[in-house]
Amino acid sequence: MSTHFADRLTEAVLWKNTALCVGLDPRWDSLPRQIRERYTTDLIGAAAACEVFCLRVLELVAPFCGVVKPQSAFFEACGPTGFAAQQKVLARARELGLLTILDAKRGDIASTATAYADAAFGIWDADALTVNPYLGRDAVEPFLSVARKSDRGLFVLVRTSNPGAGLFQDVKSGERTLYEIVGDAVANWSGENPGKCGYGDVGAVVGATHPKELQSLRQRLPGVWFLVPGYGAQGGSAADVRAAFRADGLGAIVNSSRGITFPFQPDDDDWESKIIAAAKKSAAELAIK
Amino acid sequence: MSTHFADRLTEAVLWKNTALCVGLDPRWDSLPRQIRERYTTDLIGAAAACEVFCLRVLELVAPFCGVVKPQSAFFEACGPTGFAAQQKVLARARELGLLTILDAKRGDIASTATAYADAAFGIWDADALTVNPYLGRDAVEPFLSVARKSDRGLFVLVRTSNPGAGLFQDVKSGERTLYEIVGDAVANWSGENPGKCGYGDVGAVVGATHPKELQSLRQRLPGVWFLVPGYGAQGGSAADVRAAFRADGLGAIVNSSRGITFPFQPDDDDWESKIIAAAKKSAAELAIK
Repeated sequence: MSTHFADRLTEAVLWKNTALCVGLDPRWDSLPRQIRERYTTDLIGAAAACEVFCLRVLELVAPFCGVVKPQSAFFEACGPTGFAAQQKVLARARELGLLTILDAKRGDIASTATAYADAAFGIWDADALTVNPYLGRDAVEPFLSVARKSDRGLFVLVRTSNPGAGLFQDVKSGERTLYEIVGDAVANWSGENPGKCGYGDVGAVVGATHPKELQSLRQRLPGVWFLVPGYGAQGGSAADVRAAFRADGLGAIVNSSRGITFPFQPDDDDWESKIIAAAKKSAAELAIK
Repeated sequence: MSTHFADRLTEAVLWKNTALCVGLDPRWDSLPRQIRERYTTDLIGAAAACEVFCLRVLELVAPFCGVVKPQSAFFEACGPTGFAAQQKVLARARELGLLTILDAKRGDIASTATAYADAAFGIWDADALTVNPYLGRDAVEPFLSVARKSDRGLFVLVRTSNPGAGLFQDVKSGERTLYEIVGDAVANWSGENPGKCGYGDVGAVVGATHPKELQSLRQRLPGVWFLVPGYGAQGGSAADVRAAFRADGLGAIVNSSRGITFPFQPDDDDWESKIIAAAKKSAAELAIK
Protein backbone atom coordinates (compact mmCIF):
# COMPACT_ATOMS: atom_id res chain seq x y z
CA MET A 1 0.00 0.00 0.00
CA SER A 2 1.20 3.52 -0.61
CA THR A 3 -1.55 5.61 0.91
CA HIS A 4 -1.41 6.64 4.57
CA PHE A 5 -3.69 4.56 6.78
CA ALA A 6 -5.70 7.53 8.06
CA ASP A 7 -6.29 8.74 4.50
CA ARG A 8 -7.49 5.28 3.46
CA LEU A 9 -9.79 5.19 6.49
CA THR A 10 -11.16 8.63 5.62
CA GLU A 11 -11.77 7.52 2.04
CA ALA A 12 -13.50 4.33 3.19
CA VAL A 13 -15.87 6.29 5.41
CA LEU A 14 -16.64 8.96 2.79
CA TRP A 15 -17.09 6.39 0.00
CA LYS A 16 -19.99 4.68 1.77
CA ASN A 17 -21.05 7.90 3.53
CA THR A 18 -21.27 6.23 6.92
CA ALA A 19 -19.23 5.81 10.09
CA LEU A 20 -20.52 2.25 10.41
CA CYS A 21 -17.96 -0.49 10.99
CA VAL A 22 -19.38 -4.02 10.93
CA GLY A 23 -17.87 -6.39 13.48
CA LEU A 24 -17.55 -10.05 12.52
CA ASP A 25 -17.88 -12.21 15.67
CA PRO A 26 -18.85 -15.61 14.26
CA ARG A 27 -20.26 -17.86 16.97
CA TRP A 28 -21.30 -21.39 15.99
CA ASP A 29 -24.40 -21.26 18.21
CA SER A 30 -25.71 -18.14 16.50
CA LEU A 31 -25.09 -19.18 12.87
CA PRO A 32 -28.08 -19.78 10.60
CA ARG A 33 -29.31 -23.37 10.72
CA GLN A 34 -29.15 -23.31 6.90
CA ILE A 35 -25.36 -23.04 7.19
CA ARG A 36 -24.76 -25.15 10.31
CA GLU A 37 -26.59 -28.19 8.95
CA ARG A 38 -24.05 -28.44 6.12
CA TYR A 39 -21.11 -28.95 8.47
CA THR A 40 -19.91 -31.33 11.17
CA THR A 41 -19.98 -30.00 14.73
CA ASP A 42 -16.24 -30.49 15.33
CA LEU A 43 -13.71 -27.66 15.09
CA ILE A 44 -13.04 -28.19 11.38
CA GLY A 45 -16.75 -28.00 10.64
CA ALA A 46 -17.20 -24.98 12.90
CA ALA A 47 -14.31 -23.16 11.19
CA ALA A 48 -15.79 -23.89 7.76
CA ALA A 49 -19.26 -22.75 8.82
CA CYS A 50 -17.89 -19.54 10.35
CA GLU A 51 -15.92 -18.85 7.19
CA VAL A 52 -18.89 -19.37 4.88
CA PHE A 53 -21.08 -17.21 7.10
CA CYS A 54 -18.55 -14.37 7.28
CA LEU A 55 -17.87 -14.42 3.55
CA ARG A 56 -21.62 -14.10 2.90
CA VAL A 57 -21.97 -11.35 5.52
CA LEU A 58 -19.18 -9.40 3.81
CA GLU A 59 -21.10 -9.45 0.51
CA LEU A 60 -24.34 -8.47 2.22
CA VAL A 61 -22.92 -5.54 4.20
CA ALA A 62 -20.36 -4.23 1.69
CA PRO A 63 -22.81 -1.72 0.16
CA PHE A 64 -23.45 -0.21 3.60
CA CYS A 65 -20.02 0.15 5.26
CA GLY A 66 -16.42 0.91 4.37
CA VAL A 67 -14.82 -0.82 7.33
CA VAL A 68 -15.14 -4.27 8.91
CA LYS A 69 -13.69 -5.60 12.16
CA PRO A 70 -13.15 -9.37 12.43
CA GLN A 71 -12.84 -10.51 16.07
CA SER A 72 -9.89 -12.89 16.24
CA ALA A 73 -11.10 -14.70 19.39
CA PHE A 74 -13.95 -16.40 17.54
CA PHE A 75 -11.64 -17.67 14.83
CA GLU A 76 -9.14 -18.85 17.47
CA ALA A 77 -11.97 -20.73 19.18
CA CYS A 78 -12.14 -22.90 16.03
CA GLY A 79 -8.47 -23.90 16.32
CA PRO A 80 -5.78 -23.76 13.60
CA THR A 81 -8.38 -24.10 10.83
CA GLY A 82 -10.17 -21.13 12.36
CA PHE A 83 -7.11 -19.01 11.65
CA ALA A 84 -7.13 -20.17 8.03
CA ALA A 85 -10.75 -18.97 7.95
CA GLN A 86 -9.73 -15.64 9.49
CA GLN A 87 -7.16 -15.22 6.73
CA LYS A 88 -9.72 -15.90 3.99
CA VAL A 89 -12.26 -13.52 5.53
CA LEU A 90 -9.73 -10.69 5.67
CA ALA A 91 -8.64 -11.38 2.08
CA ARG A 92 -12.24 -11.34 0.85
CA ALA A 93 -12.93 -8.06 2.68
CA ARG A 94 -9.94 -6.55 0.92
CA GLU A 95 -11.22 -7.80 -2.47
CA LEU A 96 -14.50 -6.05 -1.76
CA GLY A 97 -12.63 -2.81 -1.12
CA LEU A 98 -13.36 -2.83 2.61
CA LEU A 99 -10.81 -1.58 5.11
CA THR A 100 -10.12 -4.20 7.79
CA ILE A 101 -9.41 -3.83 11.51
CA LEU A 102 -8.29 -7.09 13.09
CA ASP A 103 -9.62 -6.99 16.63
CA ALA A 104 -7.07 -9.12 18.49
CA LYS A 105 -6.06 -6.71 21.29
CA ARG A 106 -2.47 -7.87 21.17
CA GLY A 107 0.04 -6.56 23.68
CA ASP A 108 3.65 -7.59 24.15
CA ILE A 109 7.14 -6.16 23.90
CA ALA A 110 10.23 -6.18 21.72
CA SER A 111 10.60 -9.08 19.27
CA THR A 112 7.39 -10.68 20.59
CA ALA A 113 5.39 -7.58 19.68
CA THR A 114 7.12 -7.55 16.30
CA ALA A 115 6.06 -11.18 15.75
CA TYR A 116 2.42 -10.28 16.48
CA ALA A 117 2.67 -7.26 14.17
CA ASP A 118 4.27 -9.32 11.39
CA ALA A 119 1.37 -11.75 11.70
CA ALA A 120 -1.29 -9.01 11.74
CA PHE A 121 0.00 -7.03 8.77
CA GLY A 122 1.72 -9.87 6.90
CA ILE A 123 -0.10 -13.15 7.34
CA TRP A 124 -3.57 -11.86 8.19
CA ASP A 125 -2.94 -8.75 6.04
CA ALA A 126 -5.16 -6.47 8.13
CA ASP A 127 -5.21 -2.71 7.54
CA ALA A 128 -5.20 -2.10 11.28
CA LEU A 129 -4.84 -4.00 14.56
CA THR A 130 -6.25 -3.30 18.02
CA VAL A 131 -3.51 -3.09 20.66
CA ASN A 132 -3.56 -3.15 24.48
CA PRO A 133 -1.37 -0.43 26.06
CA TYR A 134 -0.83 -1.88 29.57
CA LEU A 135 2.79 -2.89 28.91
CA GLY A 136 3.74 0.71 28.10
CA ARG A 137 5.74 2.51 25.47
CA ASP A 138 7.74 -0.47 24.24
CA ALA A 139 4.53 -2.44 23.82
CA VAL A 140 3.19 -0.01 21.23
CA GLU A 141 6.28 1.11 19.35
CA PRO A 142 7.23 -2.27 17.78
CA PHE A 143 3.67 -2.60 16.44
CA LEU A 144 3.89 0.92 15.06
CA SER A 145 7.26 0.31 13.48
CA VAL A 146 5.94 -2.70 11.54
CA ALA A 147 2.65 -0.94 10.70
CA ARG A 148 4.39 2.08 9.17
CA LYS A 149 6.40 -0.07 6.75
CA SER A 150 3.23 -0.72 4.76
CA ASP A 151 0.90 2.13 5.76
CA ARG A 152 -1.13 0.19 8.27
CA GLY A 153 -2.66 1.54 11.48
CA LEU A 154 -3.23 0.74 15.14
CA PHE A 155 -6.17 1.28 17.45
CA VAL A 156 -5.02 1.43 21.07
CA LEU A 157 -7.48 0.61 23.86
CA VAL A 158 -8.17 3.84 25.75
CA ARG A 159 -11.62 3.72 27.38
CA THR A 160 -13.47 0.50 26.71
CA SER A 161 -17.24 -0.03 26.67
CA ASN A 162 -17.59 -2.81 29.27
CA PRO A 163 -19.23 -2.21 32.69
CA GLY A 164 -16.03 -3.09 34.62
CA ALA A 165 -13.71 -0.97 32.47
CA GLY A 166 -13.31 1.70 35.13
CA LEU A 167 -11.55 -0.56 37.66
CA PHE A 168 -8.18 0.43 36.24
CA GLN A 169 -8.95 2.87 33.38
CA ASP A 170 -10.58 5.40 35.73
CA VAL A 171 -7.72 5.40 38.25
CA LYS A 172 -6.92 9.07 38.79
CA SER A 173 -3.44 10.50 39.09
CA GLY A 174 -3.37 14.24 39.69
CA GLU A 175 -5.65 15.83 37.12
CA ARG A 176 -5.76 12.91 34.73
CA THR A 177 -7.38 9.49 34.71
CA LEU A 178 -5.40 6.53 33.38
CA TYR A 179 -7.47 6.52 30.20
CA GLU A 180 -6.62 10.19 29.65
CA ILE A 181 -2.92 9.44 30.22
CA VAL A 182 -3.15 6.62 27.69
CA GLY A 183 -5.14 8.89 25.36
CA ASP A 184 -2.44 11.57 25.53
CA ALA A 185 0.22 8.96 24.68
CA VAL A 186 -1.91 7.87 21.72
CA ALA A 187 -2.10 11.50 20.55
CA ASN A 188 1.69 11.71 20.66
CA TRP A 189 2.20 8.50 18.68
CA SER A 190 -0.50 9.54 16.24
CA GLY A 191 1.00 13.01 15.80
CA GLU A 192 4.33 11.52 14.67
CA ASN A 193 2.86 10.56 11.32
CA PRO A 194 -0.20 12.52 10.16
CA GLY A 195 -1.87 11.80 6.84
CA LYS A 196 -3.18 14.39 4.38
CA CYS A 197 -6.52 14.24 6.19
CA GLY A 198 -4.84 15.56 9.34
CA TYR A 199 -5.36 12.40 11.35
CA GLY A 200 -2.51 10.14 12.45
CA ASP A 201 -2.07 6.38 12.05
CA VAL A 202 -2.72 5.50 15.71
CA GLY A 203 -6.37 5.54 16.70
CA ALA A 204 -8.10 5.13 20.04
CA VAL A 205 -10.75 2.65 21.15
CA VAL A 206 -13.35 4.63 23.09
CA GLY A 207 -16.64 3.00 24.10
CA ALA A 208 -20.05 4.35 23.12
CA THR A 209 -21.38 3.54 26.57
CA HIS A 210 -19.68 6.59 28.13
CA PRO A 211 -20.96 9.60 26.10
CA LYS A 212 -19.41 12.22 28.41
CA GLU A 213 -15.98 10.64 28.29
CA LEU A 214 -16.36 10.26 24.54
CA GLN A 215 -17.02 14.00 24.27
CA SER A 216 -14.08 15.03 26.47
CA LEU A 217 -11.72 12.66 24.67
CA ARG A 218 -12.88 14.01 21.28
CA GLN A 219 -11.82 17.49 22.38
CA ARG A 220 -8.61 16.22 23.94
CA LEU A 221 -7.45 14.16 20.92
CA PRO A 222 -8.49 16.12 17.81
CA GLY A 223 -6.07 14.35 15.44
CA VAL A 224 -6.97 10.81 16.50
CA TRP A 225 -9.43 8.50 14.77
CA PHE A 226 -11.75 6.79 17.26
CA LEU A 227 -13.01 3.24 17.01
CA VAL A 228 -16.21 3.24 19.02
CA PRO A 229 -17.56 -0.12 20.24
CA GLY A 230 -20.71 -0.51 22.29
CA TYR A 231 -23.22 0.83 19.74
CA GLY A 232 -26.29 -1.29 19.09
CA ALA A 233 -26.50 -4.57 20.99
CA GLN A 234 -24.22 -3.26 23.78
CA GLY A 235 -26.61 -0.37 24.50
CA GLY A 236 -25.07 2.73 22.91
CA SER A 237 -27.43 4.72 20.64
CA ALA A 238 -26.71 6.90 17.60
CA ALA A 239 -27.25 9.91 19.89
CA ASP A 240 -24.69 8.53 22.38
CA VAL A 241 -21.99 8.30 19.73
CA ARG A 242 -22.58 11.76 18.22
CA ALA A 243 -19.95 13.19 20.58
CA ALA A 244 -17.29 11.01 18.93
CA PHE A 245 -17.34 13.01 15.67
CA ARG A 246 -15.58 16.19 14.75
CA ALA A 247 -17.56 19.05 13.24
CA ASP A 248 -16.84 17.73 9.73
CA GLY A 249 -18.56 14.45 10.60
CA LEU A 250 -15.30 12.50 10.48
CA GLY A 251 -13.04 11.17 13.22
CA ALA A 252 -14.95 8.12 14.40
CA ILE A 253 -15.98 4.75 13.13
CA VAL A 254 -18.74 3.09 15.10
CA ASN A 255 -18.75 -0.66 15.42
CA SER A 256 -21.78 -2.90 15.54
CA SER A 257 -21.29 -6.65 15.64
CA ARG A 258 -24.26 -8.69 16.83
CA GLY A 259 -26.75 -5.93 15.92
CA ILE A 260 -25.83 -6.26 12.24
CA THR A 261 -24.67 -9.83 11.82
CA PHE A 262 -27.10 -11.64 14.13
CA PRO A 263 -30.47 -9.84 13.90
CA PHE A 264 -32.10 -13.25 13.30
CA GLN A 265 -32.75 -16.53 15.06
CA PRO A 266 -30.76 -19.55 13.80
CA ASP A 267 -33.94 -21.13 12.39
CA ASP A 268 -34.90 -18.05 10.35
CA ASP A 269 -34.75 -18.66 6.62
CA ASP A 270 -34.69 -14.93 5.82
CA TRP A 271 -31.47 -14.23 7.74
CA GLU A 272 -29.82 -12.60 4.74
CA SER A 273 -32.53 -10.01 4.27
CA LYS A 274 -32.48 -9.30 8.02
CA ILE A 275 -28.73 -8.61 7.87
CA ILE A 276 -29.20 -6.31 4.89
CA ALA A 277 -32.00 -4.42 6.67
CA ALA A 278 -29.93 -4.05 9.87
CA ALA A 279 -26.86 -2.83 7.98
CA LYS A 280 -28.93 -0.38 5.92
CA LYS A 281 -30.60 1.06 9.04
CA SER A 282 -27.36 1.48 11.01
CA ALA A 283 -25.52 2.93 8.02
CA ALA A 284 -28.25 5.57 7.70
CA GLU A 285 -28.21 6.36 11.44
CA LEU A 286 -24.45 6.87 11.18
CA ALA A 287 -24.43 8.76 7.87
CA ILE A 288 -21.69 11.37 7.56
CA LYS A 289 -23.71 13.91 5.54
CA MET B 1 -7.95 -32.42 35.83
CA SER B 2 -9.04 -32.68 39.44
CA THR B 3 -6.18 -31.05 41.33
CA HIS B 4 -6.20 -27.31 42.02
CA PHE B 5 -3.93 -25.36 39.66
CA ALA B 6 -1.78 -23.88 42.45
CA ASP B 7 -1.26 -27.33 43.97
CA ARG B 8 -0.19 -28.72 40.60
CA LEU B 9 2.17 -25.79 40.16
CA THR B 10 3.63 -26.36 43.64
CA GLU B 11 4.12 -30.05 42.84
CA ALA B 12 5.79 -29.26 39.51
CA VAL B 13 8.27 -26.94 41.21
CA LEU B 14 9.04 -29.33 44.09
CA TRP B 15 9.32 -32.33 41.76
CA LYS B 16 12.23 -30.82 39.82
CA ASN B 17 13.43 -28.80 42.85
CA THR B 18 13.69 -25.57 40.86
CA ALA B 19 11.73 -22.41 40.20
CA LEU B 20 12.93 -22.45 36.59
CA CYS B 21 10.29 -22.05 33.87
CA VAL B 22 11.61 -22.48 30.34
CA GLY B 23 10.11 -20.11 27.77
CA LEU B 24 9.65 -21.39 24.23
CA ASP B 25 10.00 -18.48 21.78
CA PRO B 26 10.83 -20.23 18.49
CA ARG B 27 12.25 -17.77 15.97
CA TRP B 28 13.14 -19.10 12.52
CA ASP B 29 16.31 -16.95 12.36
CA SER B 30 17.67 -18.41 15.60
CA LEU B 31 16.93 -22.09 14.92
CA PRO B 32 19.84 -24.52 14.46
CA ARG B 33 20.96 -24.75 10.83
CA GLN B 34 20.71 -28.54 11.26
CA ILE B 35 16.95 -28.12 11.60
CA ARG B 36 16.38 -25.19 9.23
CA GLU B 37 18.05 -26.89 6.27
CA ARG B 38 15.45 -29.67 6.35
CA TYR B 39 12.56 -27.28 5.71
CA THR B 40 11.35 -24.78 3.14
CA THR B 41 11.56 -21.12 4.11
CA ASP B 42 7.84 -20.47 3.66
CA LEU B 43 5.38 -20.37 6.55
CA ILE B 44 4.59 -24.08 6.39
CA GLY B 45 8.28 -24.92 6.57
CA ALA B 46 8.89 -22.40 9.34
CA ALA B 47 6.02 -23.85 11.38
CA ALA B 48 7.37 -27.39 10.94
CA ALA B 49 10.91 -26.31 11.89
CA CYS B 50 9.67 -24.44 14.98
CA GLU B 51 7.63 -27.47 16.00
CA VAL B 52 10.53 -29.90 15.63
CA PHE B 53 12.85 -27.56 17.52
CA CYS B 54 10.39 -27.04 20.39
CA LEU B 55 9.63 -30.75 20.70
CA ARG B 56 13.35 -31.46 20.99
CA VAL B 57 13.86 -28.62 23.48
CA LEU B 58 11.08 -30.06 25.65
CA GLU B 59 12.89 -33.40 25.85
CA LEU B 60 16.21 -31.69 26.59
CA VAL B 61 14.93 -29.42 29.37
CA ALA B 62 12.34 -31.73 30.96
CA PRO B 63 14.83 -33.09 33.55
CA PHE B 64 15.59 -29.53 34.69
CA CYS B 65 12.24 -27.77 34.99
CA GLY B 66 8.65 -28.48 35.93
CA VAL B 67 7.06 -25.64 33.95
CA VAL B 68 7.31 -24.38 30.37
CA LYS B 69 5.90 -21.24 28.78
CA PRO B 70 5.28 -21.31 25.03
CA GLN B 71 5.03 -17.80 23.55
CA SER B 72 2.02 -17.75 21.25
CA ALA B 73 3.27 -14.82 19.12
CA PHE B 74 6.02 -16.91 17.51
CA PHE B 75 3.59 -19.66 16.58
CA GLU B 76 1.12 -17.07 15.22
CA ALA B 77 3.96 -15.62 13.12
CA CYS B 78 3.97 -18.97 11.24
CA GLY B 79 0.28 -18.67 10.31
CA PRO B 80 -2.47 -21.26 10.77
CA THR B 81 0.04 -24.13 10.63
CA GLY B 82 1.96 -22.40 13.40
CA PHE B 83 -1.06 -22.81 15.65
CA ALA B 84 -1.16 -26.52 14.84
CA ALA B 85 2.49 -26.59 15.94
CA GLN B 86 1.60 -24.73 19.15
CA GLN B 87 -1.03 -27.35 19.88
CA LYS B 88 1.44 -30.21 19.39
CA VAL B 89 4.08 -28.53 21.55
CA LEU B 90 1.64 -28.07 24.43
CA ALA B 91 0.44 -31.67 24.10
CA ARG B 92 4.00 -33.00 24.16
CA ALA B 93 4.83 -30.90 27.24
CA ARG B 94 1.85 -32.42 29.00
CA GLU B 95 2.99 -35.95 28.02
CA LEU B 96 6.35 -35.16 29.61
CA GLY B 97 4.58 -34.17 32.83
CA LEU B 98 5.40 -30.48 32.44
CA LEU B 99 2.97 -27.81 33.53
CA THR B 100 2.26 -25.36 30.69
CA ILE B 101 1.68 -21.61 30.73
CA LEU B 102 0.50 -20.30 27.36
CA ASP B 103 1.92 -16.80 27.09
CA ALA B 104 -0.63 -15.10 24.87
CA LYS B 105 -1.48 -12.05 27.03
CA ARG B 106 -5.11 -12.17 25.96
CA GLY B 107 -7.50 -9.48 27.10
CA ASP B 108 -11.12 -9.01 26.13
CA ILE B 109 -14.59 -9.01 27.65
CA ALA B 110 -17.74 -11.10 27.94
CA SER B 111 -18.26 -13.78 25.30
CA THR B 112 -15.07 -12.73 23.49
CA ALA B 113 -12.99 -13.40 26.60
CA THR B 114 -14.82 -16.71 26.99
CA ALA B 115 -13.88 -17.63 23.41
CA TYR B 116 -10.19 -16.93 24.14
CA ALA B 117 -10.41 -18.94 27.37
CA ASP B 118 -12.15 -21.84 25.62
CA ALA B 119 -9.31 -21.85 23.10
CA ALA B 120 -6.58 -21.62 25.76
CA PHE B 121 -7.89 -24.34 28.04
CA GLY B 122 -9.73 -26.43 25.45
CA ILE B 123 -8.00 -26.36 22.08
CA TRP B 124 -4.48 -25.49 23.20
CA ASP B 125 -5.07 -27.33 26.51
CA ALA B 126 -2.72 -25.09 28.52
CA ASP B 127 -2.59 -25.32 32.32
CA ALA B 128 -2.49 -21.54 32.57
CA LEU B 129 -2.82 -18.46 30.39
CA THR B 130 -1.30 -14.99 30.73
CA VAL B 131 -3.95 -12.26 30.76
CA ASN B 132 -3.80 -8.47 30.34
CA PRO B 133 -5.87 -6.58 32.95
CA TYR B 134 -6.36 -3.22 31.19
CA LEU B 135 -10.01 -3.88 30.32
CA GLY B 136 -10.87 -4.31 34.00
CA ARG B 137 -12.91 -6.67 36.11
CA ASP B 138 -15.03 -8.15 33.32
CA ALA B 139 -11.86 -8.84 31.29
CA VAL B 140 -10.52 -11.23 33.93
CA GLU B 141 -13.65 -12.90 35.30
CA PRO B 142 -14.74 -14.74 32.12
CA PHE B 143 -11.22 -16.21 31.82
CA LEU B 144 -11.38 -17.25 35.47
CA SER B 145 -14.80 -18.77 35.10
CA VAL B 146 -13.61 -21.04 32.25
CA ALA B 147 -10.30 -21.79 34.00
CA ARG B 148 -12.00 -22.98 37.18
CA LYS B 149 -14.14 -25.51 35.33
CA SER B 150 -11.05 -27.67 34.79
CA ASP B 151 -8.60 -26.48 37.48
CA ARG B 152 -6.56 -24.20 35.25
CA GLY B 153 -4.90 -20.95 36.25
CA LEU B 154 -4.28 -17.39 35.09
CA PHE B 155 -1.26 -15.12 35.34
CA VAL B 156 -2.31 -11.48 35.18
CA LEU B 157 0.20 -8.84 34.04
CA VAL B 158 1.02 -6.67 37.06
CA ARG B 159 4.52 -5.16 36.70
CA THR B 160 6.26 -6.18 33.50
CA SER B 161 10.02 -6.38 32.87
CA ASN B 162 10.36 -4.07 29.86
CA PRO B 163 12.08 -0.65 30.08
CA GLY B 164 8.93 1.28 29.10
CA ALA B 165 6.61 -0.59 31.49
CA GLY B 166 6.36 2.32 33.90
CA LEU B 167 4.61 4.66 31.46
CA PHE B 168 1.22 3.44 32.67
CA GLN B 169 1.98 0.81 35.36
CA ASP B 170 3.74 3.34 37.60
CA VAL B 171 0.96 5.92 37.44
CA LYS B 172 0.26 6.80 41.05
CA SER B 173 -3.16 7.36 42.54
CA GLY B 174 -3.12 8.32 46.21
CA GLU B 175 -0.87 5.83 47.99
CA ARG B 176 -0.90 3.17 45.29
CA THR B 177 0.62 2.80 41.85
CA LEU B 178 -1.46 1.26 39.08
CA TYR B 179 0.53 -1.97 39.32
CA GLU B 180 -0.24 -2.15 43.05
CA ILE B 181 -3.92 -1.55 42.35
CA VAL B 182 -3.85 -4.35 39.76
CA GLY B 183 -1.87 -6.52 42.21
CA ASP B 184 -4.48 -6.01 44.91
CA ALA B 185 -7.22 -7.02 42.46
CA VAL B 186 -5.19 -10.14 41.60
CA ALA B 187 -4.94 -10.96 45.32
CA ASN B 188 -8.74 -10.72 45.62
CA TRP B 189 -9.38 -12.99 42.62
CA SER B 190 -6.72 -15.40 43.82
CA GLY B 191 -8.13 -15.47 47.36
CA GLU B 192 -11.53 -16.63 46.07
CA ASN B 193 -10.17 -20.10 45.38
CA PRO B 194 -7.10 -21.16 47.37
CA GLY B 195 -5.52 -24.57 46.91
CA LYS B 196 -4.23 -26.84 49.70
CA CYS B 197 -0.84 -25.14 49.29
CA GLY B 198 -2.39 -21.82 50.35
CA TYR B 199 -1.91 -20.13 47.00
CA GLY B 200 -4.79 -19.18 44.72
CA ASP B 201 -5.34 -19.90 41.04
CA VAL B 202 -4.63 -16.37 39.79
CA GLY B 203 -0.95 -15.49 39.65
CA ALA B 204 0.85 -12.24 38.88
CA VAL B 205 3.46 -11.45 36.24
CA VAL B 206 6.17 -9.40 37.96
CA GLY B 207 9.43 -8.64 36.15
CA ALA B 208 12.86 -9.59 37.50
CA THR B 209 14.25 -6.26 36.34
CA HIS B 210 12.67 -4.39 39.27
CA PRO B 211 13.96 -6.16 42.42
CA LYS B 212 12.56 -3.57 44.86
CA GLU B 213 9.09 -3.75 43.37
CA LEU B 214 9.36 -7.52 43.34
CA GLN B 215 10.10 -7.46 47.07
CA SER B 216 7.27 -5.10 47.98
CA LEU B 217 4.79 -7.03 45.82
CA ARG B 218 5.90 -10.30 47.46
CA GLN B 219 4.97 -8.86 50.86
CA ARG B 220 1.77 -7.35 49.52
CA LEU B 221 0.49 -10.52 47.80
CA PRO B 222 1.49 -13.45 50.02
CA GLY B 223 -1.04 -15.90 48.55
CA VAL B 224 -0.22 -15.21 44.90
CA TRP B 225 2.12 -17.22 42.68
CA PHE B 226 4.46 -14.96 40.69
CA LEU B 227 5.62 -15.59 37.16
CA VAL B 228 8.88 -13.67 36.88
CA PRO B 229 10.14 -12.80 33.39
CA GLY B 230 13.35 -10.89 32.73
CA TYR B 231 15.81 -13.38 34.24
CA GLY B 232 18.81 -14.30 32.09
CA ALA B 233 18.98 -12.74 28.64
CA GLN B 234 16.80 -9.77 29.75
CA GLY B 235 19.31 -8.86 32.49
CA GLY B 236 17.81 -10.08 35.78
CA SER B 237 20.16 -12.24 37.91
CA ALA B 238 19.41 -15.04 40.38
CA ALA B 239 20.10 -12.50 43.15
CA ASP B 240 17.57 -10.08 41.60
CA VAL B 241 14.81 -12.66 41.69
CA ARG B 242 15.44 -13.85 45.27
CA ALA B 243 12.92 -11.30 46.54
CA ALA B 244 10.17 -13.08 44.60
CA PHE B 245 10.18 -16.12 46.88
CA ARG B 246 8.46 -16.69 50.19
CA ALA B 247 10.49 -17.99 53.12
CA ASP B 248 9.63 -21.58 52.15
CA GLY B 249 11.32 -21.07 48.76
CA LEU B 250 7.99 -21.28 46.92
CA GLY B 251 5.77 -18.60 45.42
CA ALA B 252 7.63 -17.78 42.23
CA ILE B 253 8.53 -19.38 38.94
CA VAL B 254 11.28 -17.65 37.04
CA ASN B 255 11.20 -17.67 33.26
CA SER B 256 14.17 -17.86 30.96
CA SER B 257 13.57 -18.10 27.23
CA ARG B 258 16.52 -17.18 24.99
CA GLY B 259 19.07 -17.90 27.75
CA ILE B 260 18.03 -21.57 27.82
CA THR B 261 16.74 -22.29 24.34
CA PHE B 262 19.19 -20.22 22.25
CA PRO B 263 22.61 -20.37 23.98
CA PHE B 264 24.12 -21.32 20.60
CA GLN B 265 24.71 -19.88 17.14
CA PRO B 266 22.61 -21.36 14.31
CA ASP B 267 25.71 -23.00 12.78
CA ASP B 268 26.69 -24.79 16.02
CA ASP B 269 26.43 -28.56 15.76
CA ASP B 270 26.45 -28.99 19.55
CA TRP B 271 23.32 -26.93 20.16
CA GLU B 272 21.63 -29.73 22.09
CA SER B 273 24.41 -30.03 24.65
CA LYS B 274 24.47 -26.22 25.00
CA ILE B 275 20.73 -26.21 25.79
CA ILE B 276 21.20 -28.99 28.36
CA ALA B 277 24.09 -27.11 30.00
CA ALA B 278 22.13 -23.83 30.12
CA ALA B 279 19.06 -25.52 31.59
CA LYS B 280 21.12 -27.39 34.18
CA LYS B 281 22.92 -24.21 35.25
CA SER B 282 19.76 -22.11 35.58
CA ALA B 283 17.88 -24.91 37.36
CA ALA B 284 20.66 -25.06 39.95
CA GLU B 285 20.75 -21.28 40.37
CA LEU B 286 17.01 -21.37 41.00
CA ALA B 287 16.94 -24.49 43.18
CA ILE B 288 14.27 -24.49 45.89
CA LYS B 289 16.29 -26.34 48.55
